Amino acid sequence: MSTGQNQAPDRQRVVIVGAGFAGLAAAKELGGSPFEVTVVDRHNYHLFQPLLYQVATAGLSPADIASPIRSILRKQKNIRVVLANVSGIDIGRKAVIAEDRYIPYDILVLATGAQHAYFGHEEWSAHAPGLKRVDDATYLRRRILVAFEKAENELNETKRRALLTFVVVGGGPTGVEMAGAIAELARKALAADFRHIDPRSARVILVQAAARLLPSFPVVLSERAFQALQRLGVEVQLGRPVTECDAQGVRLGDVHVQAATIVWAAGVMASPAGRWLNAETDGAGRVKVGTDLSVPEHPDIFVIGDTACCLGANTKPLPGVAPVAKQQGEFLARLLKARAKGRDIGGFRYRDFGMMATIGRKSAVAQLGRLRLHGIPAWLLWSAAHIYYLIGFRNRIAVTLNWMWNYLTFQRGTRLITGLSGSRMEDMDTPPAMESTARTVSARGT
Amino acid sequence: MSTGQNQAPDRQRVVIVGAGFAGLAAAKELGGSPFEVTVVDRHNYHLFQPLLYQVATAGLSPADIASPIRSILRKQKNIRVVLANVSGIDIGRKAVIAEDRYIPYDILVLATGAQHAYFGHEEWSAHAPGLKRVDDATYLRRRILVAFEKAENELNETKRRALLTFVVVGGGPTGVEMAGAIAELARKALAADFRHIDPRSARVILVQAAARLLPSFPVVLSERAFQALQRLGVEVQLGRPVTECDAQGVRLGDVHVQAATIVWAAGVMASPAGRWLNAETDGAGRVKVGTDLSVPEHPDIFVIGDTACCLGANTKPLPGVAPVAKQQGEFLARLLKARAKGRDIGGFRYRDFGMMATIGRKSAVAQLGRLRLHGIPAWLLWSAAHIYYLIGFRNRIAVTLNWMWNYLTFQRGTRLITGLSGSRMEDMDTPPAMESTARTVSARGT
Repeated sequence: MSTGQNQAPDRQRVVIVGAGFAGLAAAKELGGSPFEVTVVDRHNYHLFQPLLYQVATAGLSPADIASPIRSILRKQKNIRVVLANVSGIDIGRKAVIAEDRYIPYDILVLATGAQHAYFGHEEWSAHAPGLKRVDDATYLRRRILVAFEKAENELNETKRRALLTFVVVGGGPTGVEMAGAIAELARKALAADFRHIDPRSARVILVQAAARLLPSFPVVLSERAFQALQRLGVEVQLGRPVTECDAQGVRLGDVHVQAATIVWAAGVMASPAGRWLNAETDGAGRVKVGTDLSVPEHPDIFVIGDTACCLGANTKPLPGVAPVAKQQGEFLARLLKARAKGRDIGGFRYRDFGMMATIGRKSAVAQLGRLRLHGIPAWLLWSAAHIYYLIGFRNRIAVTLNWMWNYLTFQRGTRLITGLSGSRMEDMDTPPAMESTARTVSARGT
Repeated sequence: MSTGQNQAPDRQRVVIVGAGFAGLAAAKELGGSPFEVTVVDRHNYHLFQPLLYQVATAGLSPADIASPIRSILRKQKNIRVVLANVSGIDIGRKAVIAEDRYIPYDILVLATGAQHAYFGHEEWSAHAPGLKRVDDATYLRRRILVAFEKAENELNETKRRALLTFVVVGGGPTGVEMAGAIAELARKALAADFRHIDPRSARVILVQAAARLLPSFPVVLSERAFQALQRLGVEVQLGRPVTECDAQGVRLGDVHVQAATIVWAAGVMASPAGRWLNAETDGAGRVKVGTDLSVPEHPDIFVIGDTACCLGANTKPLPGVAPVAKQQGEFLARLLKARAKGRDIGGFRYRDFGMMATIGRKSAVAQLGRLRLHGIPAWLLWSAAHIYYLIGFRNRIAVTLNWMWNYLTFQRGTRLITGLSGSRMEDMDTPPAMESTARTVSARGT
């Protein structure tokens, strides 16, 4: 299919691959511009990934944190949306290869995000699933809930202990948030529901290879997060790299911990955009871009968001977080519009408003410039910010109500084990299809 | 695992298989009684099946219409819940066979529901999926939404027409509700979101073998439903049995209609409980029960809900609808409690309060005794009744808000294509695992 149909032939064609925070921000800012814009994504929805851990722990429904891309962009008549898997770029013909068709571009924007990575231990993925996509979250939800169900039926004490042991690998924001949420699920929402087990006796272990949690945060907030997790009953193991994951559990140096559920939050790898372009990448597979976010020697190709390695003011690469992605998307769109008028707007500069991570029901840590918050004030700020940034009025209402409900009752509204009707309970830990390497990743990490 | 652990040995053991409307009503009524009750279901949630079509048409999330069985029964300390697939009954040893264990009973209650059936054309199931389980609904949602996405990319006019043709087979309440909801999805929620197709041009065809829609309703309401569907743009074909379903579409006598999406709402078959018991069944596989709902020659085995063939006051079998199931569950629990005290309460009598079906956003038909309503009054009544009966305060709020949102904006909140991350779009029509015959069905039809 040609993008040119029904279009004046002289309008420049911008193709944006990926509708995560970066791609969507660029598309929105290009709405109503003279460009003919095509957004390609392998999902029909934009995912608000910072709250994905709440889907995995039965606090929110997928629809609460996802909006159809077509709906978001419906009023931007110069933008069309294509649901397809991108497998590569034909730089010579200037076209995106998406399943069985070529989508030609004049300007290409790659915003294909990142996925979780095992850094040479891909065989761990079946035992220690990660959390990047909606299907990852509903799969983890199923695994966590099924573990309690199996424990209820298990007479062997050792096996029951393993079923009630949850190991979260990785002490960044996702790991901290997952560990806190699993602990609260066990201690509160499930506490009274079983007859043979006490869900409150579940062990939740957070394993961090580095010497402290949340290494990108100020030290004092790492300590606050550590204390908040301990209050929730999470065992935090610092300076303990995982040396093995298997069906029985994890090995930390010479200690083996038997656990039926392992969550991988230890690392991400950029999407294969660098390989598509044969461009220079950093250790995490991110494409090194210039200050205008273009790829060296390809002035018509831009990489933004988690797939880009962009140096900040301190010459260190900017982190793969949502605010960087959004600001890059907006900057790039303004740059393209300016250049079309023969002007320039200088290089990209990241405005760092701070960072936040939440720990359970009413605690969080936040750093905003020099301000450092923890406990309830940080949690209130975190809640307000996340609700504000959730796309779409409806989602904001739904999430607010779910949170109020969870907060008031300690209940979880979405405790459903779905996705494998007709399975025996033993079969319920089949993971969703893994990423192939030739795929765009639309969701983004923070 | 023995049910006897931590229990006085002289308490009678009641095992309820299936936590649909019938089984759950019986369990709730037995809460706090001297019986030791075990509820076995293959899902961890009770499903409010009358609204399942709204999940299939992107109006509600699965969690809006499902509640964890453990939560519902958490305060009934004499009840335990077992998540397991039941595959048969060992009548000699008086035990339920659930995966790898025996659950002994003194009194057995089978409330295993019904599933959709193709009556000798099981090969149609891949092309014409039915709607009984959560996974059926999310699968249908994916298929319907993907059909529009494929049509947007399709250049061949004939193929595009087929992608935009939706055939609903069966003119009972489920078929009428599905056809109305698909038509509204196309005409309203999706109308402005595509660039190459006009979703409002989608054909929605409702095929009914009988001479009128909703044959169990008064004739005047069948006509009202027909008119309401026509106003929504649904083509209603009466007296047209389907003679073939395949990947290309459906055959109605000598006419073949090309359609990419076919929804099967034409018939249900009871769960295999009759086979487990080797008991006498009717044409739909339902176990013929006495006025006390027990199985002839098995005074300790009761069958209730969609799996039971129970004669009403007019000596005709009662329909497989939620009110019958609920009343049977409540009756049976009262009967068991009375008998334990040496008393009797007579036979089951169904109190028929009427029936309802909804057609789109603000129309419905309802019959309550002699009262017959249609249009907005019937729709308001339908909405109020369904919200009232939805289990759990939270679900009521969520559903009400979703409906208000959909009503005010014509939007659908849950337009997510999920469940097959990593698939190419062509592969997205893989159906969920089909029922094996040796399985309990917990969800129930109305």
